[in-house]
Amino acid sequence: MAEFIKTYYNLTWKFLTIQTNFLVRRLLIMLVIVIMASASHPAFSQQVPLADLTKYVNPFIGVDNNGNTLPGPCVPFGMVKLSTDCGKLNTNSGYKTGTDIKGFSHTHVSGTGGGAKYGNVLVMAVTGELNPANYASPGSDEQAKAGYYSVFLSRYQVKAELTASHSVGFHRYTFPASEKSSIIIDAGSFLSSLKSLGENQELVGSEISHCSANRIEGYTRVRGGWNKGGAYTVYFCIETDKSASSFGTWTDGVLNPESEQAVDHGNSNGAYLTFQTTSNQTVQLKAGISFISCSKARENINIEIPSWDFEKVRQQANDTWNKALNSIIVKGGTEGQKSIFYTALYHTMIQPTDRTGENPCWKSDEPYYDDYYAIWDTYRTVNPLLILIQPDRERDIIRSLIDIYRHEGYMPDARSGNINGRTQGGSNCDIIVAEAFLKGISGIDYKTAYQAMITNATIPPGGSQEQEGRGGINEYINLGYVPTGFEPPEVEWQSSNPKNYDRGGSRTLEYAANDWAIAQFAKGLGYNDDFDNYKKRASNWANLWQRVNDHDATGFIWPKKANGTWLEDFSVFKNGGWANVFYESNSWEYSFYVPHDVRSLIDSCGGKQAFVSRLDTFFTNGYFQVNNEPGFLSPCLYIYAGRPDKTTFRIKQILNNHYSSGRGGLPGNDDSGAMSAWYVFNAMGFFPNAGQDVYLITSPVFEETTIQLSLEKTFTIKVKDLATENPYIISAKLDGKTWDKAWFTHGDIINGGTLELLMGNKPGSWGITTPPPSMSQFKY
Amino acid sequence: MAEFIKTYYNLTWKFLTIQTNFLVRRLLIMLVIVIMASASHPAFSQQVPLADLTKYVNPFIGVDNNGNTLPGPCVPFGMVKLSTDCGKLNTNSGYKTGTDIKGFSHTHVSGTGGGAKYGNVLVMAVTGELNPANYASPGSDEQAKAGYYSVFLSRYQVKAELTASHSVGFHRYTFPASEKSSIIIDAGSFLSSLKSLGENQELVGSEISHCSANRIEGYTRVRGGWNKGGAYTVYFCIETDKSASSFGTWTDGVLNPESEQAVDHGNSNGAYLTFQTTSNQTVQLKAGISFISCSKARENINIEIPSWDFEKVRQQANDTWNKALNSIIVKGGTEGQKSIFYTALYHTMIQPTDRTGENPCWKSDEPYYDDYYAIWDTYRTVNPLLILIQPDRERDIIRSLIDIYRHEGYMPDARSGNINGRTQGGSNCDIIVAEAFLKGISGIDYKTAYQAMITNATIPPGGSQEQEGRGGINEYINLGYVPTGFEPPEVEWQSSNPKNYDRGGSRTLEYAANDWAIAQFAKGLGYNDDFDNYKKRASNWANLWQRVNDHDATGFIWPKKANGTWLEDFSVFKNGGWANVFYESNSWEYSFYVPHDVRSLIDSCGGKQAFVSRLDTFFTNGYFQVNNEPGFLSPCLYIYAGRPDKTTFRIKQILNNHYSSGRGGLPGNDDSGAMSAWYVFNAMGFFPNAGQDVYLITSPVFEETTIQLSLEKTFTIKVKDLATENPYIISAKLDGKTWDKAWFTHGDIINGGTLELLMGNKPGSWGITTPPPSMSQFKY
Repeated sequence: MAEFIKTYYNLTWKFLTIQTNFLVRRLLIMLVIVIMASASHPAFSQQVPLADLTKYVNPFIGVDNNGNTLPGPCVPFGMVKLSTDCGKLNTNSGYKTGTDIKGFSHTHVSGTGGGAKYGNVLVMAVTGELNPANYASPGSDEQAKAGYYSVFLSRYQVKAELTASHSVGFHRYTFPASEKSSIIIDAGSFLSSLKSLGENQELVGSEISHCSANRIEGYTRVRGGWNKGGAYTVYFCIETDKSASSFGTWTDGVLNPESEQAVDHGNSNGAYLTFQTTSNQTVQLKAGISFISCSKARENINIEIPSWDFEKVRQQANDTWNKALNSIIVKGGTEGQKSIFYTALYHTMIQPTDRTGENPCWKSDEPYYDDYYAIWDTYRTVNPLLILIQPDRERDIIRSLIDIYRHEGYMPDARSGNINGRTQGGSNCDIIVAEAFLKGISGIDYKTAYQAMITNATIPPGGSQEQEGRGGINEYINLGYVPTGFEPPEVEWQSSNPKNYDRGGSRTLEYAANDWAIAQFAKGLGYNDDFDNYKKRASNWANLWQRVNDHDATGFIWPKKANGTWLEDFSVFKNGGWANVFYESNSWEYSFYVPHDVRSLIDSCGGKQAFVSRLDTFFTNGYFQVNNEPGFLSPCLYIYAGRPDKTTFRIKQILNNHYSSGRGGLPGNDDSGAMSAWYVFNAMGFFPNAGQDVYLITSPVFEETTIQLSLEKTFTIKVKDLATENPYIISAKLDGKTWDKAWFTHGDIINGGTLELLMGNKPGSWGITTPPPSMSQFKY
Repeated sequence: MAEFIKTYYNLTWKFLTIQTNFLVRRLLIMLVIVIMASASHPAFSQQVPLADLTKYVNPFIGVDNNGNTLPGPCVPFGMVKLSTDCGKLNTNSGYKTGTDIKGFSHTHVSGTGGGAKYGNVLVMAVTGELNPANYASPGSDEQAKAGYYSVFLSRYQVKAELTASHSVGFHRYTFPASEKSSIIIDAGSFLSSLKSLGENQELVGSEISHCSANRIEGYTRVRGGWNKGGAYTVYFCIETDKSASSFGTWTDGVLNPESEQAVDHGNSNGAYLTFQTTSNQTVQLKAGISFISCSKARENINIEIPSWDFEKVRQQANDTWNKALNSIIVKGGTEGQKSIFYTALYHTMIQPTDRTGENPCWKSDEPYYDDYYAIWDTYRTVNPLLILIQPDRERDIIRSLIDIYRHEGYMPDARSGNINGRTQGGSNCDIIVAEAFLKGISGIDYKTAYQAMITNATIPPGGSQEQEGRGGINEYINLGYVPTGFEPPEVEWQSSNPKNYDRGGSRTLEYAANDWAIAQFAKGLGYNDDFDNYKKRASNWANLWQRVNDHDATGFIWPKKANGTWLEDFSVFKNGGWANVFYESNSWEYSFYVPHDVRSLIDSCGGKQAFVSRLDTFFTNGYFQVNNEPGFLSPCLYIYAGRPDKTTFRIKQILNNHYSSGRGGLPGNDDSGAMSAWYVFNAMGFFPNAGQDVYLITSPVFEETTIQLSLEKTFTIKVKDLATENPYIISAKLDGKTWDKAWFTHGDIINGGTLELLMGNKPGSWGITTPPPSMSQFKY
């Protein structure tokens, strides 16, 4: 079957000039979709014995140093991400090493920055008199594994243990002897950020009811957060394995003993169950959540965790992770390197969140994923990784993106709490879709996806230029770039007027890259006029290229005003944000971002030698921002200039110096696994140029890496003479034949094979003659 | 207090050129808001005995002939609008004379067109074997009063009686003797429209639970409808006064006897309670609804209707209506005329829906109204009427509009199910706000309202050019008009591409009128630059004025393409829709729509005589569409040309020929009371030019009409020699002094007074010398 698909797409892609009838082609695509939809692709049901890989997962890697990863338990792409919330103003994960623990809530995102999202349905175990306004406790003896977390709450002398299934959090609390041991459920709790940031969550309302002596139901309704989304509602059903001796609720901090219910009047409501406990007595608790209803949350418990066997659920979570991690087997390397690697791989499967069956916005037979947070990050690494190790998952994620377009008008660039937003740069789902198409992922309604991409590229997103689509697209179309500079506000409030969008530099660059994704896709679908149009647009980055000099580099992306004049007061080192020329970056970094036409970029920089020298300045002078997505591809650009040795050298430096197995082990926000997936790819020895059918060979960490591509097929990278003193690749073979390119295509490996790399202590001539493809060299 | 406000606003308005410091002015406005918010304006708590006016209300007026009014009970602006749903494909009210009754649901809108909205939480009484797929019954012996409805369900021999409070429907069913008398609750029912219309509602999910032998809770979640909104959820709690002998649920038409719950999996779920009844035994039922939660719905019952006294609740509903109707007292006229008049007045207080405390989208201390359906209709008549008879209500409605802007970025032009949409023409909330400002309504954050209006006027609404704001605003700003004509689609799906917006004719006209509203408001707030800009924009209608001839009329609004050329293939009689040049109208009608500058329009038409002749052609040849809002002001335009006699004559014709006291008594969609309010105004003898401080004197129906402006103040219109043979006003007095203008301002009457009109059988010279104000004659 895979052969047939590959052949079909190769036909579609290669024989572009053949004017096959549009409808016939459409029917063929539909046929492939229908056939493939009925053929499962059981990547993880292989019969070979699974290696024990979860032992390498350390969920504490990246929790500090702004990594913002989640230490708490979940299953891959799980709806419940149960984790520890600390302090009053929260980090994005809720967790902060060394601060008091407020409790354990069931919804989180991992690795994000800006205003925090979620942190709903918080459970805490306490002893003594209840104080709804202050129940946090210091924690000690923390442990975290894939699917398990425990901590000792020293204020109360309670051990808390957590595990999870897809939609249910399972808690086990071991109490001391106490007349008043209580479980509290805070339906008004959520992760808080500074209001002045403008990205803080706000309570809309909450409700909680004691349904019986051991069942509590309710919901939290919250709006805001980084994506500035409208209200979302998390319903819950919580069951305990023991009946309480007393109970009550609270509203806005005031206790109401024996109250059975706190109705939603926009308040912060909570409830508690009090038990008399003997020493080491446990109280177990299952918290089902749902975005549909409390009854659905209760049903989720009954389906996923019918028993009270904590260890069994923990084992199931571990097994699920272990299966997922077995998609890549590494040999060699240190235990520390394996811990970094498998924890990174673990981090790539936390988001987006699979909410199929839990969509309160519309009814559909398509998969539903939320927490694309953000595609601006993940399109570079996570999505290309999933195409290799979980193609069915990537297919479902893309189907969900398309279904969001069908019902809401735009695919998201980011989405959370069931609402699109925000767009940091371009509409990078264009790149995700084009890449899946180019790499032959079947089962996707590509025609509708194309409509969604054209919508991104042509329809202004309106009032909020940050919510979806491409802000300033009219200007981009009319001028060939997104202009910069704020119009002088007529009255003072207009300083925040959304029509005064900027990010003219980074948006223009990303829109050009997105346009090339559309162009390739248009060609594949036979829309030749669109191909010509979008190929032309894909060169728009050059409209902002000004021949200025800095540190011996010539030519930079420079802000241009709507009237065609360059901005005068500007620095190539100016790091920007939402309202500046370059989002989260500066011109030094972003002037390398022409991923689809590096060849033209090299020409603009003055040729290969000047380009290599410029890259050297970039890395040597520390202008490269390792914690920042816009530079993800930069170390690989040497390959395009015939210096793969320098790519290998730089990548190895970054892998060694900026990733570690400690709590600060990630160089910055993990961004839904984007930073981790960067590690995974490069540690395997290659890196994707997202949205194109090309992988660049970089710097392997392990002597052997095997990717389980499908039930029958594997791709293995074997490295000879791997040693610290041998940082360079000096020769390569693919399936036994000499391979003199420092890159390969998806087609080169997707049917299985082996890439052998020979390392050496000096750069040789390997990989310098045939650069990877660039837009401007393609012949059509 | 009213004096102070009036003085304050007069100061603000008149001394426009005084450069008072902005912040000082802002503080003054805030001060007025704070003071007024604490002073109630008890328009309906006057101590004078109330007249019995509900006896004139006949809720069946307008249910047929596309009037689409609601026959079922509600209280003014009530959340529950309980009414009868008939058939499978529904009218917009759910009701259709002479068709089988499916049941009684709790949410409706009144008078609308297009795809139906709501119809949630349907209750029906049946006997015998249950069939969830077909339980409709013919109805007979229908009665409807303000706050009461009854019908005999002949299939089951059950009498159904309904009344309502704000959030609760109260049902009384009188059963025959039967072993199986059942109440069924269909949580999956909603009003259906043809899917091909693209405005049909779709089920997202539903849930229902038997909580006890006499309490059922659940919800319906639906999306779509005319405004193409996302999902809304109506929660309910239903209690019966008797415990059932058996019960069950159904899912997608399949009965599940004794099932306690049907959980939401996107299905259509229902439940039933079965009783053994003796002859004439009643079962009463209270159905609380909420947009927050089932518990809130239950609480709504407990607060609003704690008892089981049907007659008491019915009386309360009647009394509430009677108080509201007592804001206008008429003397003279026939019983039929009073029935038309008071039913029309009744129809003006059904929407928007007061959902304060029931907003699931955000938490706020501001009022919350939904079902602005649509402002495109109501700004012309309903909102100006509320300013006179319920100024506090109008203030709250406007505060709600502003709060929607604060949280969602745009004020709605229409909104339903908590989601903005759709905009038929301009952003006519601009007119509502400007009018309230000009007429001195206090307690409104006018500064934020101004921001919202500037947003409408400058920020393109994005992907959906129909949802909010002004579609094509960039083109309107750049070209001076909204261009017409569809770009040729590149691929076939683009024929529905939202960038190909049209309505270029009607949008340009409405945007110009909206701009004048902004200009007046800007002047009042001291934004003189904005005033100049928007006054200039308010002349943009002239950019589409082409000197073509038709039926002796010269000059018509004509579609122009983006390149500045006129569309060639076009007819002035072409009635359009969403995708045409004139929304819901044609050029003959819309070429009269320059409400803010009739003087310039008259000049463009060739002077007063040509204008009068053109109006004569319009009415005589039947080009006037009486059932259509764009022509609401047209009969009054004669006044601007010095022929008030013709206005009086035409209005009388329309009142007599197109309104009656029967089921088809309205000429078309009542549109949330817009059509009824047109009657109310003209029957009183005057009509507002919305958004301006002017009332035009038209054609009184009654010998005396008194408006209760406030607790102490009334405005009375007395008509002498009113008779069929005396269709013309020949002289007038205001407060005893000769009044030779066929118009007056809000300031002329708002402190109370009496307008005396003398009728005659021939047109005289009254009212011809001083036309009402037009933009182009104002001196600033």
